[in-house]
Amino acid sequence: MKIKKPSLAIDMDGVIADTESHFITWYHKDYGVHINREDLIGKPESEAFPDKQAVWKFVNSPGFFRTLPVMPGAIETVKELMNDFEVYIVSAAMEFPQSLFEKHQWLQEHFPFISWKNIVLCGDKSIIDTDYMIDDHFKNLDFCKGKAILFHAAHNATTDRHQRVHSWEEVKVLLKKELETESSC
Amino acid sequence: MKIKKPSLAIDMDGVIADTESHFITWYHKDYGVHINREDLIGKPESEAFPDKQAVWKFVNSPGFFRTLPVMPGAIETVKELMNDFEVYIVSAAMEFPQSLFEKHQWLQEHFPFISWKNIVLCGDKSIIDTDYMIDDHFKNLDFCKGKAILFHAAHNATTDRHQRVHSWEEVKVLLKKELETESSC
Repeated sequence: MKIKKPSLAIDMDGVIADTESHFITWYHKDYGVHINREDLIGKPESEAFPDKQAVWKFVNSPGFFRTLPVMPGAIETVKELMNDFEVYIVSAAMEFPQSLFEKHQWLQEHFPFISWKNIVLCGDKSIIDTDYMIDDHFKNLDFCKGKAILFHAAHNATTDRHQRVHSWEEVKVLLKKELETESSC
Repeated sequence: MKIKKPSLAIDMDGVIADTESHFITWYHKDYGVHINREDLIGKPESEAFPDKQAVWKFVNSPGFFRTLPVMPGAIETVKELMNDFEVYIVSAAMEFPQSLFEKHQWLQEHFPFISWKNIVLCGDKSIIDTDYMIDDHFKNLDFCKGKAILFHAAHNATTDRHQRVHSWEEVKVLLKKELETESSC
């Protein structure tokens, strides 16, 4: 009998894609000003940079989502987790329609082992039902139906809600533990 | 107190977009052969036309999804249902990446009253959790978590599973009844 794997929804921006460092790079390129990650702590990304229009401009610029750097360790860990979890990539992409195709291309390049069947580009995530959800935004995790895992980011650093992880190494350790607990029940 | 509306997932192709008639139109245009809807009954769309490659070619052609005709009555009924339901458009678009932007544009043109927050472009629909789901494919309805409503199409006409509706008028009548039953419980 084939045992159904637990389902795991993984966000893109701020989780497998390093939007924070990309914003810093693009800000430096456009404005000649270097912003430190520490400067971003506790502020919504849209308000964290000196020019409050910058982030909005970047996310609406062709190429922004296509050129995002991959979060360190994400590719290897996601690949490994797929042995034990039914992995879905779930991204709130509908707000930026031009990102739809770029996000698909980005996934094709960096995560070609994820089937098209397991990709979801959506608006709000309230109708997504998975056993686990990894996200960097409270708005997605607060109403999620499974176990919420908060991926650390400067913008979420000062609020304490949900289980927090700081890296893909921590995700791996946490989810392996979850599996052990589950199998010992 | 604000009462939460029941959630309703509505498929695009074959439900709010008339793919069947579009296939017939494009087949006639490309091959000079007119196919009747009756000829399509009980066959998967990909195998229903004389040239078995035609459907695959069409769905991968730029413009196919952008120019789909709207299913009669869909716009008015969806708009009306939004008074009583939290409506989500849920389309298995990831198989055809070039359709992502076209589907978004099509929705913007014909259903501009649907917020980007309520649009989901996905692969399989097994992690979608809504109270109701309207779809023309058994593969989506068989595992859906809420009440399944099968929108009639030639390809699903010979199998009897789930509550079947033949038009948007029938959807309206059925869902109004559901609301009455719910409120009398």
